[in-house]
Amino acid sequence: MTQLQAARKGIVTEAMKIVAADEGLSPEAVRDAVASGEAVIPLNIHHTNCRPVGVGRMFTTKINANLGRSVTHSGKGDELEKLAIALNAGADFVMDLSVGEDIPAIRQGMLNASNRPLGTVPVYETISRLDGDIPQMDPAFLVSVIKAQAEQGVDFMTLHAGLMLEDIPKAMKRRMGIVSRGGSIMAEWMMANRAQNPLWERWDEIMDILAEHDVTVSLGDGLRSGCLMDGSDEAQFAELAKLGELVERCRARGVQVMVEGPGHIAFDQIKMNMEREQELCHKAPFYVLGPVVTDIAPGYDHIVTAIGATAAATYGASLLCYVTPAEHLGLPDGDEVHQGCIAYKIAAHAGDIARHHPHARDRDDQMAQARHDFCWDEQFALALDPAHARNRWLKTRANSDVDHGDDHCSMCGKQFCAVRTSKRIEKLATQTN
Amino acid sequence: MTQLQAARKGIVTEAMKIVAADEGLSPEAVRDAVASGEAVIPLNIHHTNCRPVGVGRMFTTKINANLGRSVTHSGKGDELEKLAIALNAGADFVMDLSVGEDIPAIRQGMLNASNRPLGTVPVYETISRLDGDIPQMDPAFLVSVIKAQAEQGVDFMTLHAGLMLEDIPKAMKRRMGIVSRGGSIMAEWMMANRAQNPLWERWDEIMDILAEHDVTVSLGDGLRSGCLMDGSDEAQFAELAKLGELVERCRARGVQVMVEGPGHIAFDQIKMNMEREQELCHKAPFYVLGPVVTDIAPGYDHIVTAIGATAAATYGASLLCYVTPAEHLGLPDGDEVHQGCIAYKIAAHAGDIARHHPHARDRDDQMAQARHDFCWDEQFALALDPAHARNRWLKTRANSDVDHGDDHCSMCGKQFCAVRTSKRIEKLATQTN
Repeated sequence: MTQLQAARKGIVTEAMKIVAADEGLSPEAVRDAVASGEAVIPLNIHHTNCRPVGVGRMFTTKINANLGRSVTHSGKGDELEKLAIALNAGADFVMDLSVGEDIPAIRQGMLNASNRPLGTVPVYETISRLDGDIPQMDPAFLVSVIKAQAEQGVDFMTLHAGLMLEDIPKAMKRRMGIVSRGGSIMAEWMMANRAQNPLWERWDEIMDILAEHDVTVSLGDGLRSGCLMDGSDEAQFAELAKLGELVERCRARGVQVMVEGPGHIAFDQIKMNMEREQELCHKAPFYVLGPVVTDIAPGYDHIVTAIGATAAATYGASLLCYVTPAEHLGLPDGDEVHQGCIAYKIAAHAGDIARHHPHARDRDDQMAQARHDFCWDEQFALALDPAHARNRWLKTRANSDVDHGDDHCSMCGKQFCAVRTSKRIEKLATQTN
Repeated sequence: MTQLQAARKGIVTEAMKIVAADEGLSPEAVRDAVASGEAVIPLNIHHTNCRPVGVGRMFTTKINANLGRSVTHSGKGDELEKLAIALNAGADFVMDLSVGEDIPAIRQGMLNASNRPLGTVPVYETISRLDGDIPQMDPAFLVSVIKAQAEQGVDFMTLHAGLMLEDIPKAMKRRMGIVSRGGSIMAEWMMANRAQNPLWERWDEIMDILAEHDVTVSLGDGLRSGCLMDGSDEAQFAELAKLGELVERCRARGVQVMVEGPGHIAFDQIKMNMEREQELCHKAPFYVLGPVVTDIAPGYDHIVTAIGATAAATYGASLLCYVTPAEHLGLPDGDEVHQGCIAYKIAAHAGDIARHHPHARDRDDQMAQARHDFCWDEQFALALDPAHARNRWLKTRANSDVDHGDDHCSMCGKQFCAVRTSKRIEKLATQTN
């Protein structure tokens, strides 16, 4: 039984109880959210070392870290190290996007090491096994890979099932065409074979497999825009409408489902995009990449997209897929994975505050108190990256040649510390009254 | 004659012509914007090596880099190096916030080295010369420092003239009190002397000095919030209303004026804050610090505030004061100055795109074309930080053990490059028709 099927029957599962505890909600509230489809708990029945995580607007906003090696451009064997870095930095979900050889072995290693839900894009393994020959892909083989991954314990799978043959020409009008790796694979297969999307065609069969192992579908946005110029276009929204249909088919079969979204989108278009997904996709949790709000900052796309992701979290997204400083230039190393995760913890949290999620600001208020009181240890304990904050502060102290006291802000120095001065003012104000 | 006085007389100054050329506007349009007070061109008549820069909503959004050493916590003698880094990274304005000894000499060095407008907070020098004894400050001495700085060539000055004695108790109710360094100085002086704000009291005299040298006033927000909990409170808005009065007094005297703003403000409050400033301050250009949208990420406040700054630029700000990764922990070193500038170039640009500023997206569209065409050199030339982007890409190539070709994206590798695949799809699509 999937979490969705259980919820509909009124059953509160162990996973729901854990999510409820983590979110400060009642188990029944979580159950109801899962039953409605507005929340999902991606958790393959075989991934037994995984702690359940809820995705949905009634929960805190979650972040995902993409990992996995590429054929030509990644160091080998360090994916487990990056996984540890991502989990340590607070990633709620991870995806293995490896292509090339030994994918099942890499994935098994990550499943064993990850106590958080793991996702994949099965068509990557499929095409890797065909040595990159996309037109030759047998749809039955693709389904067999999905089945093997479901049996192995993958918690959620990106399936580009809503990219329709008839919508491909719309994407060909763009400056950047199709920039989704999975989307481009599906589209080439369709165009080369003059055939409809094989995932769409075999959807019922796929549903049976996923329901058996409670794999959550993440409906891929194969036609997401690859530059601002292409954002929010007819290709993107044609696919989104189809994803809405697939949401209903998933739910009808008891399969949990979320929807993936843009992409490169100007800052002012984000709210509209979030609202449209909620409307067209029947409030299925929205899982967004960025969005990228300018194309001119390669090397800093974690910042570029944290801006977009904050707006996305504010206006409708439930899960934010991180982007690292390496985006558009290479695959991230361990430090870049860390940087990406922190940028997205910031975005998720700032979004939760902005949408007035209950208690979201508590930690900020505690930080303010610690700053007011010059309690440096407490400030670092409350920081998203305690070691980094402490080290930077210690550097200031090491450079200081006058005063090593802790009773003032480390920027202005003791004599000019506004917080110190403010306390004197408070005393003066008290004397007046 | 100030730029404002000239504009009102229908004169197009040399500075207006340069701003017009930089902004792609007619000189008359710039003149009209300056005449209305909706734009300013901070440019002291003595700062002859300075290239004029326009601030206002009809121009692109500008960024400011804060520099200057503190008494206890900064390396000595490296402010000129940081200035060069800031200008090289694209800072449109710089401020010297030094406290301690030798401030006029530090400032003269920066004026000589900066071809961009330089700002100060004169009360810092004033109190430094009094060895930190705030209550003993003679208002006449403060005015004399303002005069000396104006004569030296300072282009704009932050004056916390709208922080009124009667509003201080409102700030004392907060968790963080007063966190503006200049604001806390003014407030302590007022409370210790039971006297009204000396800048407010001597405003006409100050106006005469500033008009003579065409120093632009930047009305300081001494009561800006220091944590999310304190954001958008009565203290902040009481001061903002007073700043609106001062805007009118500046304009009446022919003095250019802009207004400074928050601070720590939740993401969802930024639009309201921008609109309120435009309304209360008669459309004077808004110069904002951040805003900071969460308090829990010390070490990453350039990212935290780039998020807020993008929203600010979208909804009403004209000048963004950068925040560096060192914020809340120390004064920035050269690399942190660079990081802060780039984060704010991103925010300013993303905001310009979001508010549909004419041609704002052109460079992004060129980047998209360069990406589509795998023109790497052009991508780096278009990047906000070309050297950083190129170095990161070269690292990818150095790590690659298979294919050093340039005709594919450096993330997925040649076989899985979506842009390559997309081009094959385009070919297949053409064959259909």
